[in-house]
Amino acid sequence: MVYRRLVRPIITLLTDFGLRDSYVAEMKAAVYTRCPDATVVDITHQVPPQNITAGGLQLERAVRAFPAGTIHVAVIDPGVGTSRRLLCCHVAGQTLFVPDNGLVSWTHWRLGPVEANELRWRPAQESATFHGRDILAPAAAMLATNTLPFDAIGPANEITLSGPKPATALSEAVAIDIDIFGNVVTNVFGDLVKPGLTACGSVPLHRTYGDVPRGQPLALIGSSGLLEIAVHAGNAAEMLGLKIGDKVPLA
Amino acid sequence: MVYRRLVRPIITLLTDFGLRDSYVAEMKAAVYTRCPDATVVDITHQVPPQNITAGGLQLERAVRAFPAGTIHVAVIDPGVGTSRRLLCCHVAGQTLFVPDNGLVSWTHWRLGPVEANELRWRPAQESATFHGRDILAPAAAMLATNTLPFDAIGPANEITLSGPKPATALSEAVAIDIDIFGNVVTNVFGDLVKPGLTACGSVPLHRTYGDVPRGQPLALIGSSGLLEIAVHAGNAAEMLGLKIGDKVPLA
Amino acid sequence: MVYRRLVRPIITLLTDFGLRDSYVAEMKAAVYTRCPDATVVDITHQVPPQNITAGGLQLERAVRAFPAGTIHVAVIDPGVGTSRRLLCCHVAGQTLFVPDNGLVSWTHWRLGPVEANELRWRPAQESATFHGRDILAPAAAMLATNTLPFDAIGPANEITLSGPKPATALSEAVAIDIDIFGNVVTNVFGDLVKPGLTACGSVPLHRTYGDVPRGQPLALIGSSGLLEIAVHAGNAAEMLGLKIGDKVPLA
Repeated sequence: MVYRRLVRPIITLLTDFGLRDSYVAEMKAAVYTRCPDATVVDITHQVPPQNITAGGLQLERAVRAFPAGTIHVAVIDPGVGTSRRLLCCHVAGQTLFVPDNGLVSWTHWRLGPVEANELRWRPAQESATFHGRDILAPAAAMLATNTLPFDAIGPANEITLSGPKPATALSEAVAIDIDIFGNVVTNVFGDLVKPGLTACGSVPLHRTYGDVPRGQPLALIGSSGLLEIAVHAGNAAEMLGLKIGDKVPLA
Repeated sequence: MVYRRLVRPIITLLTDFGLRDSYVAEMKAAVYTRCPDATVVDITHQVPPQNITAGGLQLERAVRAFPAGTIHVAVIDPGVGTSRRLLCCHVAGQTLFVPDNGLVSWTHWRLGPVEANELRWRPAQESATFHGRDILAPAAAMLATNTLPFDAIGPANEITLSGPKPATALSEAVAIDIDIFGNVVTNVFGDLVKPGLTACGSVPLHRTYGDVPRGQPLALIGSSGLLEIAVHAGNAAEMLGLKIGDKVPLA
Repeated sequence: MVYRRLVRPIITLLTDFGLRDSYVAEMKAAVYTRCPDATVVDITHQVPPQNITAGGLQLERAVRAFPAGTIHVAVIDPGVGTSRRLLCCHVAGQTLFVPDNGLVSWTHWRLGPVEANELRWRPAQESATFHGRDILAPAAAMLATNTLPFDAIGPANEITLSGPKPATALSEAVAIDIDIFGNVVTNVFGDLVKPGLTACGSVPLHRTYGDVPRGQPLALIGSSGLLEIAVHAGNAAEMLGLKIGDKVPLA
């Protein structure tokens, strides 16, 4: 794996902070103060509060989408201020600054292995409740500008893993996410899927939404390469009564 | 019309993807990967799902606001993956990458004519469900960096037109949008409006909200040059019971 | 106080416009048209409509977070189009373009004094309803590029002050904000807080959320240096029945 520094550093932010408060902007201030020519990109800030699994799925999509050299800062951090560690992770030529709480699990399982070192850098002054702004965002900006102190990164560390695992057989399929359109995302990689597959008893496999009439359900390989259940111009989760964590019968 | 290339390319994004998922960020990744010094601007990602008319109104406001040379990518695309065409459009010195489904209609009627060519470029690998990320955003970034292949753009094409038309007389006034404040936007251009106009029986024309007491309705030329019905510090759509598509009586 | 110009100008936007409409993007267009290399940062656009106090609290957090040289444009502006003045303010080495309606009060009380001059610049054409796009954003971009006309700034002006004041004693504590997590922010600066403090009868002071079991309330100095009431992995405003404006008993 080649690690490279982008001429114009890309730093992404992923949190459960929402957009009502100035919290995300305060993280951007921490980045721009140290790296004025950064390109800061919001992945999402609407992860359900403290939902590490949901945040981890979005993080993996981000890593898959962005080029080598990108630096990601992901803050779903119910343990802020406690003794949980902070990590500097490497995967796919990219760097991830995260709390060590399982947030990189899905990335590890799909794109990994993720290599992790403890992030030991701490500012002279830090709050006990906002390490995203006070530690992780500054560390990302310092990495982007070659100013991260030499003792900032500790030795290699095991990472905490949690949440749903990729299915190794169709019988292990579960709903791991439901997107804004009501599409039900499963833990089944596209290469497990064979022509003629049927989901939930009678839902046929197709290539895209428009292959079935409006209002009809279908299974398809979604834009992240996972098997999804969708409804053409409709909401599959509602129509089929599927919730995150539910088994998805495949045959 | 002079078309120019901005020193620092502006690429805007308009979708119905919402902000919960990483979809918008994946489009930005596609842009920054190919055009690292782009300025990417979100127009809105909260267009009601698959509502081409609503998206088209926001797109026209964007074209009106941004300078010549701007490149817009607009993805309200219920037909993704089917045989609907993709377009590269020119209007007002700006370029628009869109599906050919009526999305540029209001721009055509207000700022046009819109000239359109088919966008024929396709990536080596594309998903069947996310052409915004896989085709339109990359095409915009390639245009911005002079790397769009010569055969990417097909011959001139008719564009699909749909949705409400500008009123040619006050009697044709309809509500075409209701903004976040409850202001009711009509299809009546300001130059059709004469002093003394009355809307909905008794709502008087004024210059701005503060010209009437709090809680009182008024008609005014809004910030996009269209006749709007508003309530000072209130919600006109609720107070007057107006919905999108309703006739707005004017006298 | 040293005022400096950033090599890459940072211009922030804070409004009550929401993200449904193109309004925020139109302000960004006004900035980028005049200052193509600006870094534009959204503070928040979800201030409750026309809530000057709520917007002012977010504005102060922004000023606290961003570096000297930053230019802020804040538009909570129920009086748009009336005779209310527009201001160009200076505080903490930063510049704020705002309507003169109390929006900078909390910044004045916490980080001030805020010095203010009337912004007299007006464009050749302006709407009567969108001064954020037509006056304030262009003025910010012109300041960033040294192109603000010499007569754009009038003489020093008193600023309008309104909203809650910082507590000078624990007995004056009130809830001034409730963030997206349900944390209740008070008007009590951290330096007023002594070890052993108890809030709302029995809520103990701690350093961070994880210092109490999940579901338990605590008081703490939040990331903005103010006393907050929170619940570990829960919603303090709901659990304790606190609303903005309520007295918060401290002992």
